[in-house]
Amino acid sequence: MNPESWLVLCRTVRFGDTDAAGVMHFPQLLHWCHEAYEESLERFGIAAEEVFPRPGSIPEIALPIVHCSADFFKPLVCGDPLAIALEPQRLDPSCFEVRYRFSSNDTAVAQALTRHLAISSSQRTRRELPAMINRWLEASSLQSGVQPL
Amino acid sequence: MNPESWLVLCRTVRFGDTDAAGVMHFPQLLHWCHEAYEESLERFGIAAEEVFPRPGSIPEIALPIVHCSADFFKPLVCGDPLAIALEPQRLDPSCFEVRYRFSSNDTAVAQALTRHLAISSSQRTRRELPAMINRWLEASSLQSGVQPL
Amino acid sequence: MNPESWLVLCRTVRFGDTDAAGVMHFPQLLHWCHEAYEESLERFGIAAEEVFPRPGSIPEIALPIVHCSADFFKPLVCGDPLAIALEPQRLDPSCFEVRYRFSSNDTAVAQALTRHLAISSSQRTRRELPAMINRWLEASSLQSGVQPL
Amino acid sequence: MNPESWLVLCRTVRFGDTDAAGVMHFPQLLHWCHEAYEESLERFGIAAEEVFPRPGSIPEIALPIVHCSADFFKPLVCGDPLAIALEPQRLDPSCFEVRYRFSSNDTAVAQALTRHLAISSSQRTRRELPAMINRWLEASSLQSGVQPL
Repeated sequence: MNPESWLVLCRTVRFGDTDAAGVMHFPQLLHWCHEAYEESLERFGIAAEEVFPRPGSIPEIALPIVHCSADFFKPLVCGDPLAIALEPQRLDPSCFEVRYRFSSNDTAVAQALTRHLAISSSQRTRRELPAMINRWLEASSLQSGVQPL
Repeated sequence: MNPESWLVLCRTVRFGDTDAAGVMHFPQLLHWCHEAYEESLERFGIAAEEVFPRPGSIPEIALPIVHCSADFFKPLVCGDPLAIALEPQRLDPSCFEVRYRFSSNDTAVAQALTRHLAISSSQRTRRELPAMINRWLEASSLQSGVQPL
Repeated sequence: MNPESWLVLCRTVRFGDTDAAGVMHFPQLLHWCHEAYEESLERFGIAAEEVFPRPGSIPEIALPIVHCSADFFKPLVCGDPLAIALEPQRLDPSCFEVRYRFSSNDTAVAQALTRHLAISSSQRTRRELPAMINRWLEASSLQSGVQPL
Repeated sequence: MNPESWLVLCRTVRFGDTDAAGVMHFPQLLHWCHEAYEESLERFGIAAEEVFPRPGSIPEIALPIVHCSADFFKPLVCGDPLAIALEPQRLDPSCFEVRYRFSSNDTAVAQALTRHLAISSSQRTRRELPAMINRWLEASSLQSGVQPL
């Protein structure tokens, strides 16, 4: 499988992503991060319902975000094309991070990070990461050159 | 109880509500409608958990929106004060509408409508409106002068 | 040009589009409508900057939405694929509508409408639609079988 | 002036803030931060139009966010009351940060940070912070006990 198929995703800045300063409204970057994470899992072959709850189907393990950050290098305007490069990395048996590098026309424009903790959906106690997430983390580490811990 | 306490709500247009045209981005009005509906129920004395699901606590009856509309009369900019007048009305034993009239400094700026259907949360079949929603609809009709059906 | 290239667009329901009922939060449909409208213009060959403002570049004619509506037929959950069919139609020399039909796995799930008015960006008075928008409306009417007015 | 009038703000978690896991969707916290920052300025006596652009009125100095972060301690559900305590702090003559501590029923639930850079709106080059922002920073430092740099 071509790693670009699940670790580099594309989108376009839309009008509703902007604010009255004419540029992308900052929390929007974190919405894009989560959508890129979802698309990455999907392209790797993990169905949404295996990870994300829906009515009547709640995965045993939830992966809530416990920390996030973002840095903004350049203003982004409506119509700008974006490439989003993901670097997922396991931190410990129950925790992983994803780093996101945003570029537009080969210029770095922003970066971000989300940290996810595996917990029991019903008891909200710490658990090991699901096997399919571990496979995605391992395959991603091999491709991106980041060594798994 | 003063009807204004649950049928006229206030908020301010915030920067994140705007887009690069410098004015409120249109779907935001419908977000405001739903927040005004939630605040109206709360002020009337109906706790959020009686109507809206949360983990481990799903009300038996859900009230999904099956139709909505909005009309925009004036552009709204960051900092504009808003008054939102609600007119809830029962349409039949399992359905109600809420009309929302938005004004800013006593000028009408927008109006909107949401139509809600009562269904079983588990089976998604039509049900009668919950008793507490009927009380809110009846009290609201008396106050707003709209006759209940 | 294949009409499907600009009148039928695709996306996937993402986690951030849902609410605690486990399904798409209703105003999100109107965000998707606007993004589909932007993508349709782009695919037809109209650059974002010709229609949408950005810092230091404000098109002479703005096309604000003066009315919108939506009908919801089926709940949408995270991971659902969506096809969005657009039917743009001119109403008069300064006004057009776009109808949006949402389907998922060949089942109709929602429909929506946005009505746009052409105004002077600086004076906010009614104007004729820009020539490029007229070309998009005419080409779309031919493809979708809706007769231009 | 009571510092609580501009440094401790309140809101309620609404249904549209949640996702299909039943809890607040993480980027929403940063939307709340920006709204709290806007409300703090407003309560301190700085009008929105002095800081935020609107059509035909663009402040000379813009204050874009160049970095943000957030930590999530507890899940937040629809109806939860929130108190947001702000700690604004000047970092250098053209830069300030705001720290946000979120609590619900006296329990810490989340914290966040936004870093703002003063730039010329037209040239996007670094500038000194506007005088009114400096007044807000100084008054806030006195109240919160954080020493100004």
